Amino acid sequence: MTSGFSHSSSVNKPCPHSKCQDCLGRIQRYIVTKLGEDWLFLVLLGFTMALISWSMDYASAKSLQAYKWMYVELKGNVPLQYLAWVTYPIILIVFSSLFCHLVAPQAIGSGIPELKTILRGVVLKEYLTLKAFVAKVIGLTASLGSGMPLGKEGPFVHIASICAAVLSRVLSIFTGVYEVKLTPDLLVCACAVGVGTCFAAPVGGVLFSIEVTSTYFAVRNYWRGYFAATFSAFIFRVLSVWNKDSVTITALFRTNFRMEFPFDLQELPAFAVIGISCGFLGAFFVYLNRQVVLFMRRPTALTRFLTKHRLIYPAVVTLIIATFTFPPGFGQFMAGELMPRECINSLFDNFTWTKIWRSASPPGLGRSAMWLHPHVSVFIILLLFFIMKFWMSAVSTTMPIPSGAFMPVFILGAAFGRLVGEIMATLFPNGILFDGIVYRILPGGYAVIGAAAMTGAVTHTVSTAVICFELTGQISHILPMMVAVILANMVAQGLQPSLYDSIIQVKKLPYLPELGFGHISKYNIFVEDIMVRKVKFLSPQSTYRELDLLLQSTTLKTFPLVDSKESMILLGSIERCELQAACDWWLSAERRVYNQGQGISSPGSKVSWECFTFIDEEEQEENKEKVRPKWIHRGAAHSIVCSVATVYHCDITTDATFDWPLQIKAWEEAEMDKPIDIDHIRIDPSPFQLVERTSLHKTHTLFSLLGLSHAYVTSIGKLVGVVALKEVTRHLTPNCSLCAADWAAHRSGQMQR
Amino acid sequence: MTSGFSHSSSVNKPCPHSKCQDCLGRIQRYIVTKLGEDWLFLVLLGFTMALISWSMDYASAKSLQAYKWMYVELKGNVPLQYLAWVTYPIILIVFSSLFCHLVAPQAIGSGIPELKTILRGVVLKEYLTLKAFVAKVIGLTASLGSGMPLGKEGPFVHIASICAAVLSRVLSIFTGVYEVKLTPDLLVCACAVGVGTCFAAPVGGVLFSIEVTSTYFAVRNYWRGYFAATFSAFIFRVLSVWNKDSVTITALFRTNFRMEFPFDLQELPAFAVIGISCGFLGAFFVYLNRQVVLFMRRPTALTRFLTKHRLIYPAVVTLIIATFTFPPGFGQFMAGELMPRECINSLFDNFTWTKIWRSASPPGLGRSAMWLHPHVSVFIILLLFFIMKFWMSAVSTTMPIPSGAFMPVFILGAAFGRLVGEIMATLFPNGILFDGIVYRILPGGYAVIGAAAMTGAVTHTVSTAVICFELTGQISHILPMMVAVILANMVAQGLQPSLYDSIIQVKKLPYLPELGFGHISKYNIFVEDIMVRKVKFLSPQSTYRELDLLLQSTTLKTFPLVDSKESMILLGSIERCELQAACDWWLSAERRVYNQGQGISSPGSKVSWECFTFIDEEEQEENKEKVRPKWIHRGAAHSIVCSVATVYHCDITTDATFDWPLQIKAWEEAEMDKPIDIDHIRIDPSPFQLVERTSLHKTHTLFSLLGLSHAYVTSIGKLVGVVALKEVTRHLTPNCSLCAADWAAHRSGQMQR
Repeated sequence: MTSGFSHSSSVNKPCPHSKCQDCLGRIQRYIVTKLGEDWLFLVLLGFTMALISWSMDYASAKSLQAYKWMYVELKGNVPLQYLAWVTYPIILIVFSSLFCHLVAPQAIGSGIPELKTILRGVVLKEYLTLKAFVAKVIGLTASLGSGMPLGKEGPFVHIASICAAVLSRVLSIFTGVYEVKLTPDLLVCACAVGVGTCFAAPVGGVLFSIEVTSTYFAVRNYWRGYFAATFSAFIFRVLSVWNKDSVTITALFRTNFRMEFPFDLQELPAFAVIGISCGFLGAFFVYLNRQVVLFMRRPTALTRFLTKHRLIYPAVVTLIIATFTFPPGFGQFMAGELMPRECINSLFDNFTWTKIWRSASPPGLGRSAMWLHPHVSVFIILLLFFIMKFWMSAVSTTMPIPSGAFMPVFILGAAFGRLVGEIMATLFPNGILFDGIVYRILPGGYAVIGAAAMTGAVTHTVSTAVICFELTGQISHILPMMVAVILANMVAQGLQPSLYDSIIQVKKLPYLPELGFGHISKYNIFVEDIMVRKVKFLSPQSTYRELDLLLQSTTLKTFPLVDSKESMILLGSIERCELQAACDWWLSAERRVYNQGQGISSPGSKVSWECFTFIDEEEQEENKEKVRPKWIHRGAAHSIVCSVATVYHCDITTDATFDWPLQIKAWEEAEMDKPIDIDHIRIDPSPFQLVERTSLHKTHTLFSLLGLSHAYVTSIGKLVGVVALKEVTRHLTPNCSLCAADWAAHRSGQMQR
Repeated sequence: MTSGFSHSSSVNKPCPHSKCQDCLGRIQRYIVTKLGEDWLFLVLLGFTMALISWSMDYASAKSLQAYKWMYVELKGNVPLQYLAWVTYPIILIVFSSLFCHLVAPQAIGSGIPELKTILRGVVLKEYLTLKAFVAKVIGLTASLGSGMPLGKEGPFVHIASICAAVLSRVLSIFTGVYEVKLTPDLLVCACAVGVGTCFAAPVGGVLFSIEVTSTYFAVRNYWRGYFAATFSAFIFRVLSVWNKDSVTITALFRTNFRMEFPFDLQELPAFAVIGISCGFLGAFFVYLNRQVVLFMRRPTALTRFLTKHRLIYPAVVTLIIATFTFPPGFGQFMAGELMPRECINSLFDNFTWTKIWRSASPPGLGRSAMWLHPHVSVFIILLLFFIMKFWMSAVSTTMPIPSGAFMPVFILGAAFGRLVGEIMATLFPNGILFDGIVYRILPGGYAVIGAAAMTGAVTHTVSTAVICFELTGQISHILPMMVAVILANMVAQGLQPSLYDSIIQVKKLPYLPELGFGHISKYNIFVEDIMVRKVKFLSPQSTYRELDLLLQSTTLKTFPLVDSKESMILLGSIERCELQAACDWWLSAERRVYNQGQGISSPGSKVSWECFTFIDEEEQEENKEKVRPKWIHRGAAHSIVCSVATVYHCDITTDATFDWPLQIKAWEEAEMDKPIDIDHIRIDPSPFQLVERTSLHKTHTLFSLLGLSHAYVTSIGKLVGVVALKEVTRHLTPNCSLCAADWAAHRSGQMQR
């Protein structure tokens, strides 16, 4: 690859083959340039993710097969059977937990909340490492292979993002100069690929990832996302055809409902009931999940014990869940033998269970037979399944392993929908009469609608409907499904944050509420109404005393720098840490010693100040890590100078031991009244500015779009106020000021770290 | 309504019923507040649009029925039949053209390009009037009823937008204080509703409207769009059930392909061929359409004649098209009798025409029999249909009537796909052998894929695939369709702009190219690489002479204002017209006369300057119209003062007639050297600023997101350069500098108007 560059540099040499070489060099350069382009990146990403998804599915399916085989082989010996039924998932879950804990604790959980935060502009670099990738892939395969109610879609978004991060680094090495930066654009595509490969649902994947991760969305990414997700879903399905799992490319959970008359208008109230109920249930699921997490975080003796012995919690949870689902035990009343995928397939089937219950099972019933208990009604079984799986799903997703909640919630929704469908089929045993033809009710269709509505309510998205179409391969129920999903969303959005926002709140990640329904009045609130008018500022004329007072009296992270107190023209902003460091240095012992010993300027100060360069706002985020080592370096230099100074001190103190604390005091007092040395402080030259008549709506847009934490309000260059995220948040959600405060606290914590 | 407010103001009165009244007032206020919320707006919008869409469909269907009836009744008398066949559409098209011309010429054409421009931030107010609404609805109904190859989806987007604009005004009247502003947010939703009701495709509608109209998209609008589009599609379909057009809510063009094995992997190359060919054909369609428009705009004797007699062009085009499609004539070789909707239904059918040709027609063939000519092969018919309809569609969409190109292109794509499908069915007459079972090829599936790919290529969108699913009610072909659409897009995007962008270019509307594929290198170009460093600026110290020189030497629309030449701190920007006016006023005769007569300050200047207030950037756009009358007002004031001055003059000139031109000259020279009166010029206090290290990518984002035309580059408050749309455009598309230049010319033209 590098030879290409030497060729290109030798273009101007007057050799006979120069033309040919020139051409060759050009071609190579062209290839290198093309390698840096994003379509190749997207193809590679799609291909890799398809391979990973398929392999993971394959491995976890084999694991579940082994689990089932073991259980069946031990038939007759119930205690041994129980032991096998319980031990197998415990081993896998504990292994997953241990592996993640040892390799990369960032791999724990869903990954979507973190991705959302990263796309909000916050750098969480440790989340996109190769280590996290390995931990997530291995851990997730083990989790899925255990048969616990866990999903793979959240982790898959995370895996795809890491994959994108690693790929961009690899491609950068290959292409040399043309660096493929991991931009938010590519991360959004990665999310789409993640969801797309997980369900073989490219359209739904793109939409879901948009809804879940973004506030503002560039339409060009939508195109890229489609390209990558389609390619990836295509490869994923081709792999399964190649492996003879299926005869051709079809949907993952294909349904076979009649198409000529999928439903009647008279069934719509039932669909609406499913939507509204799913809204409440979804909100309750989010609440329950958060309560479990919060309970585990409360400092009690039990939780302290569990934190110390990390593996006990997942092991106990798995033990309890496996015990409940043990088929010869309580499991027989809740179809406990069915693994997640089997649940979906059977809930979506074409039979009406209440009709075939206690009669000869029709051909093609398959695993659906599990729902038909000889003595217990189908309703009881479905209800028990729903209730048990509800808490199981809410609890199991809190285990410290890589796991998603989408699939478990999907199953819950399907079970609820099926329950309503079976009730409807009992209420109208002869179906619905229309135009002289009697159409029977399809409980499977209700299950699909329930699944879409429930996942929509929990994740606050409407694209779950699209995912459902792609998963089932049927679109005949589109309108009632959309209605149910929208109703579920309306209810759930009014009651609880989405599951991902809930996790963001619990984990105290940066958070700005969305502009939801009924926020149109925000157009009539302006920046001048919400801005803080008493702005603390600095000017080149400010003294160190003023600076010190400012630092001690406030906890602000940045301070505006104005031209002068009179003109108030905004020049830029300075970070708190910069000011603190400048202040500390100004009054430091080594500067004093050098000053008193050698004059005004000290060589030491030059060394330490040279480390700083003027860096663009955009680069700052990326360079934070680079800057930090410099800080350490400066600290080290500091301590070296200090020790020198201490030696020096001894020399001085021998002359005048008695009055040196007084002398220092006097020197410090004198120094404090000098104006601050503005040329040696790093300034952000273009802090974000608004004018007084900018609407709150536009402010929210800019804040969420550009990932701002604050903006200065200027009027013809003059600083007149400041608006922070806090003000915006407070005026958007009067009852949610807690979030903003939390956020600010977290942010400051992060800064100080 | 107002009584609610008087109640609320009487809360503090100590009357016995105050509590009850208070409560009542609160409820009423609550209702009024709720009325101002957007969900009600969206419901109303959805409902109205569903009604309009359904009525329009009903009316145009009745019109087509009458057309057909007339044609059938005259069977046996070919000349009379021809006369009826030709006259009916001519009357309707000419009526439509005349109506639009008389009522609102803005109603002509698709409407999507204009909406795209409006959402880009440009105000085209005359496009959203009630007049345009009436013209569009009536004109479109007549156009659709003529049976010409015209669509309704573009105009529907326009109609929905006007509907939103009118509704927001009506709601504002009802709710009083709570004004419902027509925000871009609501316009985007209106677009979604437009497409959604047109095809009863809510998901596809939302996605299509996003892709077509936006560059950046707020996810909250996506939610709103879904809500409104679903509601509207639902009502639209319920209306048709209520009218007994269909038994239940189903897809508009429902297909009935087998689901267990929709296609084999071996058919994929054929799908890919459809995709790539459709890419080329789509690009050619856009090219052809533009060439026709450009030809019509060229100033030749013919076009001048046609512009003068506006109705001749549509009449002649309709005559030619109707002549070609006349069923007993050439029409028999191109299924000329089929109306657009019948074409789609028959092209999507489940038969294999090459198999049933020349044999007894199977039951349920219906209108598809039109494709089977007793003597001519199906291939020839399909090919002729495709070729003839291709130019017909390209030409008929240029007629001065409300019309869309989506449906005609959809039909073209379906015909092309069907052609490929029939060829495949002939090549593999026994179908494809897989796993011992022979699966026959489904030409209808090919037609669906072709339709999606062709529309995708012409509009540069991928959501046409989703629209196809919703239109057909089947999703089994999702992956090959996505692949075909993406391939078609890749080819078409490389060759031509989208049809809408093409119209934008032809109409010279503001335009900023998208960041397409392979633009990742734009991350490595920074503002400092593209900015113009020699910035023309003004400072409070600038003299009128400098200002005059500046205005004469440049054509810039805005000038930056800096603190002083030395500090270069950016204070704001001033529009050219403001400066020109200030300059003109400074040297005006009335100011001179007042100055010389009464001293330095003149009362006239005060009157005229008082009209100006400092207005926020955001409000400027809205207030442009309000400002303009003020200009006129000022002009009027000016002329009044002028006439006074002239009288005055006469008084003066009687004293010293001989030297007054010299005196004026001297006065002007003296005045020119005075510094500009900055306090009396309207300044934009916060022009958009960038820093030198902002990437081109981010710049593009900000420009397209905030609808900027230029931005100043600052470094710690100092003005160091300027970046205009021109620079951004040039560096994005080195070969498309023409567009930018065009745009700039257009913009300046608009400004000067």
